[in-house]
Amino acid sequence: MRNLITDVAGIKVGSAHDSALASGVTALIFDAPATASVAVGGGAPGLRDAHLLEPGMTVEKIDALVLSGGSAFGLDSVGGVQSWLRQQGRGLQVADQLVPIAPGAILFDLANGGDKDFWNMPAYWRLGYEAAEAAAAEFPLGSQGAGFGATLADLKGGLGSASATTEDGFVVGALVAVNAVGQATIGDGPFFWAGAYERDGEFGGLGWPNSVNEAALRPQMKGAAPENTTIAIVATDADLAKSQVKRMAVMAQDGVARALRPVHAPHDGDTVFAAATGHAQGEADMFALARLGAVAADCLARAIARAVYEASPLPFPGALPSWRGKFGR
Amino acid sequence: MRNLITDVAGIKVGSAHDSALASGVTALIFDAPATASVAVGGGAPGLRDAHLLEPGMTVEKIDALVLSGGSAFGLDSVGGVQSWLRQQGRGLQVADQLVPIAPGAILFDLANGGDKDFWNMPAYWRLGYEAAEAAAAEFPLGSQGAGFGATLADLKGGLGSASATTEDGFVVGALVAVNAVGQATIGDGPFFWAGAYERDGEFGGLGWPNSVNEAALRPQMKGAAPENTTIAIVATDADLAKSQVKRMAVMAQDGVARALRPVHAPHDGDTVFAAATGHAQGEADMFALARLGAVAADCLARAIARAVYEASPLPFPGALPSWRGKFGR
Repeated sequence: MRNLITDVAGIKVGSAHDSALASGVTALIFDAPATASVAVGGGAPGLRDAHLLEPGMTVEKIDALVLSGGSAFGLDSVGGVQSWLRQQGRGLQVADQLVPIAPGAILFDLANGGDKDFWNMPAYWRLGYEAAEAAAAEFPLGSQGAGFGATLADLKGGLGSASATTEDGFVVGALVAVNAVGQATIGDGPFFWAGAYERDGEFGGLGWPNSVNEAALRPQMKGAAPENTTIAIVATDADLAKSQVKRMAVMAQDGVARALRPVHAPHDGDTVFAAATGHAQGEADMFALARLGAVAADCLARAIARAVYEASPLPFPGALPSWRGKFGR
Repeated sequence: MRNLITDVAGIKVGSAHDSALASGVTALIFDAPATASVAVGGGAPGLRDAHLLEPGMTVEKIDALVLSGGSAFGLDSVGGVQSWLRQQGRGLQVADQLVPIAPGAILFDLANGGDKDFWNMPAYWRLGYEAAEAAAAEFPLGSQGAGFGATLADLKGGLGSASATTEDGFVVGALVAVNAVGQATIGDGPFFWAGAYERDGEFGGLGWPNSVNEAALRPQMKGAAPENTTIAIVATDADLAKSQVKRMAVMAQDGVARALRPVHAPHDGDTVFAAATGHAQGEADMFALARLGAVAADCLARAIARAVYEASPLPFPGALPSWRGKFGR
């Protein structure tokens, strides 16, 4: 196990970024079309081609999922991923045309110090193409792809991932770009809200504090022009119906709630995509589905903490510190 | 402050139960119509007159909210609350008719050992009336009202409440009937998942464990015929638009995620109502709203732990122990 979402059979992930832009794109490519859905939790989401993910909509399977910086401009990245997919002969066959289905979500990193004065076509289409081209089983975490320019209220954010296996033998993984209005850590200290869910010291091994004082519980948020939104993907190798994948997405949002605080705020676009590749044998009944959702939530909470733990600071004056930089670990 | 949802100006709460039935009803009565909305998180909700709570629907203000045991039968309780309200001259005036608006949600406690062999009209209409009649500023927690017959995977559930004040000076409160498929405590021990959020030893003062082993993280759920669903209300004295109240309901679900695990499962109907009485002065901007949602989530997490902490076991053979009974505190 790599402790990455690519532990789920049938998934590759690639990232691309532009350092001057201080932003980037992460693409998750399915080897074969996968059943997918979505749960939007924040009050200010930015999505492309995502309405079709609701149960009851016709398209059941998709080719890729895209996470991007760049606010609404970043939705260009989906086009780049689609073009790359079409060049591989991928996509939904409609008459004699291939239409790759690659829903995407963005986060707001426009005010992070990078050069975002777009007078011409922004870089996101190209970055989407490059991210798809880079897709592989191994991929780096931290200040990468959609997490390259991401931040939290007090620390640098980034790209995170984690995986686990359910009691039923299904593999589950999570991928996330963490750019929260709030915090992943408790008060001014190094403890992660997700501390209880950590495995094998994957984000520092500090565990939980025994108590949290009231001052540390006061909601800490970014101020004016808040950089916002955490966007994520959870996936499993189970063979699920679209309505079951929707339930998995909803339950995975609980991992976001456990790892970030506050979250799902009015100025957040927090979104979780979920997907089932169907590589594993066996039906998932209601209980197995509940376990898939619970473990997806755990993986996503861990992936959020890993994103922060692995991040490096942006090279701009006044940029937020990284977790390692601030706590010297 | 009573540390109850009735700390929010303009709210009274009453409960009624039937011991042989092992079930009951809790009614929250607004002194004057309040703006309200809802966020459904579970996969198997049971609601009455709740669709009107979505932003975009015409009715903006409601008279009461109802939490009930009894699964779909329990939705009768809303009728009892409505009749009591009409007798007080309350309700939406439509031509010369008063129509009290009292959305309600149920939890599944049919298999908890109580006598649920309904051959005649079930008791819920009457219990709803009695709960409304009993509404007051002070009300007891634990095995009361909608929480009378409630359980978790391993412990007796119950009725909980808590309150707090935001930095902006708005009062927030939560009320909940906890009947989760999963757990409010960690593994086999006495620690509450909500431990970090506790105030003044309100649920035992144990805080958090420093670490949680992998076995304790294995999702524990009720088995066949799972008694399920946690239903809650959060409220504030702020004067909010209906769309803002919806956001508060969504954010409050994060408190459910932090206090229960697993939750929002396919067989759960976990629902959070939110309401704003408007007794306080001052507009809530996007940041104040985010703080309202964050504090509502905290209050709801605390209310969930208090529900379990204050509960007493049902008197039936094989009934689940209470937290105090199991841990001797």
